[in-house]
Amino acid sequence: MSGNTAHAAATTFRKGNGRIDRAPYDLDTVLDIAVATFNERGYEATAISVLAERLGTSKSALYYHVSGKEELLRRALDRALDGLEAVVEASAAVPGTAADRLEYVLRGAVRVLVGELPYVTLLLRVRGNTDVERDAIRRRREFDHRVSELVDAAHAEGSLRADLDSGTTSRLLFGMINSIVEWYRPGGPLDAEALADATVSVALDGLRAR
Amino acid sequence: MSGNTAHAAATTFRKGNGRIDRAPYDLDTVLDIAVATFNERGYEATAISVLAERLGTSKSALYYHVSGKEELLRRALDRALDGLEAVVEASAAVPGTAADRLEYVLRGAVRVLVGELPYVTLLLRVRGNTDVERDAIRRRREFDHRVSELVDAAHAEGSLRADLDSGTTSRLLFGMINSIVEWYRPGGPLDAEALADATVSVALDGLRAR
Repeated sequence: MSGNTAHAAATTFRKGNGRIDRAPYDLDTVLDIAVATFNERGYEATAISVLAERLGTSKSALYYHVSGKEELLRRALDRALDGLEAVVEASAAVPGTAADRLEYVLRGAVRVLVGELPYVTLLLRVRGNTDVERDAIRRRREFDHRVSELVDAAHAEGSLRADLDSGTTSRLLFGMINSIVEWYRPGGPLDAEALADATVSVALDGLRAR
Repeated sequence: MSGNTAHAAATTFRKGNGRIDRAPYDLDTVLDIAVATFNERGYEATAISVLAERLGTSKSALYYHVSGKEELLRRALDRALDGLEAVVEASAAVPGTAADRLEYVLRGAVRVLVGELPYVTLLLRVRGNTDVERDAIRRRREFDHRVSELVDAAHAEGSLRADLDSGTTSRLLFGMINSIVEWYRPGGPLDAEALADATVSVALDGLRAR
């Protein structure tokens, strides 16, 4: 089944009852609707039939794209995690200090949050009730761990204040960044770049005028 | 019924079936268990019978304390909101600049978060499905609004950086503070005062060594 999912929209196929059904959306659209519905109602409470209804299609047309609800969740969480992990990977090649690499990661994380807002929202709400969710939590912890290592390195080189421990520092940093999914709405006066600038600047330099 | 709720624990009373039942907990204990269960399972998904079971008592003994699940929710949200509002009220009497009053509010908010951790966690998860929840959201918005006014005043007096707008500033600030409910666990190496110091210090002065 998963081999089919790479195909694009509007493929026709014949169902068992002879009716010709249409798979009217590409996988990205299916995912967008699924993620919006999971965020609104919760993953557990969302039946696959509700997704089919929202897409204006049948369950069988939906099964043309994915093997079920869990595959939608996995693909959605992968999309958020792939984005965040790519930022950490790329940071290794940033020249300069550990603080420069940390700044690159913070800025990149804000961009991923804004660019994949509903996907990261879903990721941040995952509670670990299924294997797919537990895998996602494991990958998120690994991401957090690598950012903490960068914070440690920036501490060790003297770029960050010595009076704050790096565990608390990392948590407050990501608390601030992750909160963006709660209040940021794209299309307002603040675009992704301005938000990334403001966030990194508050984190590193604070709010006080100097 | 609500007139009864001020009474303390272990009052005996006779049920319709003649069995003598005991109300074995005071209201604070009932609330603690209810809030822990709401946070774990969600308010909607928690039946009053589950709360009775967790308390090792009967539904009728529970109804001796409260009129129902909604009263528990209201009392729980009141406790979180009363704490936060008291901080803003008290800040009006703090001498000095608007920045001093803002610092007082941030520090006080962290203390309330830590002191009433499960209660504030519940408040932050409220989505507005009932009148009780909508009232709580209205009070929380009023609190946010009063903090934003303090941020505005601190901006206007030149205490805060002029290059950041106060809306974004307030949201990042409270994003960082509210995230504490997600990761802080009492009893660890960081007590409430040290956490309040670290949070206020990161918010105002940033992480960068100077």
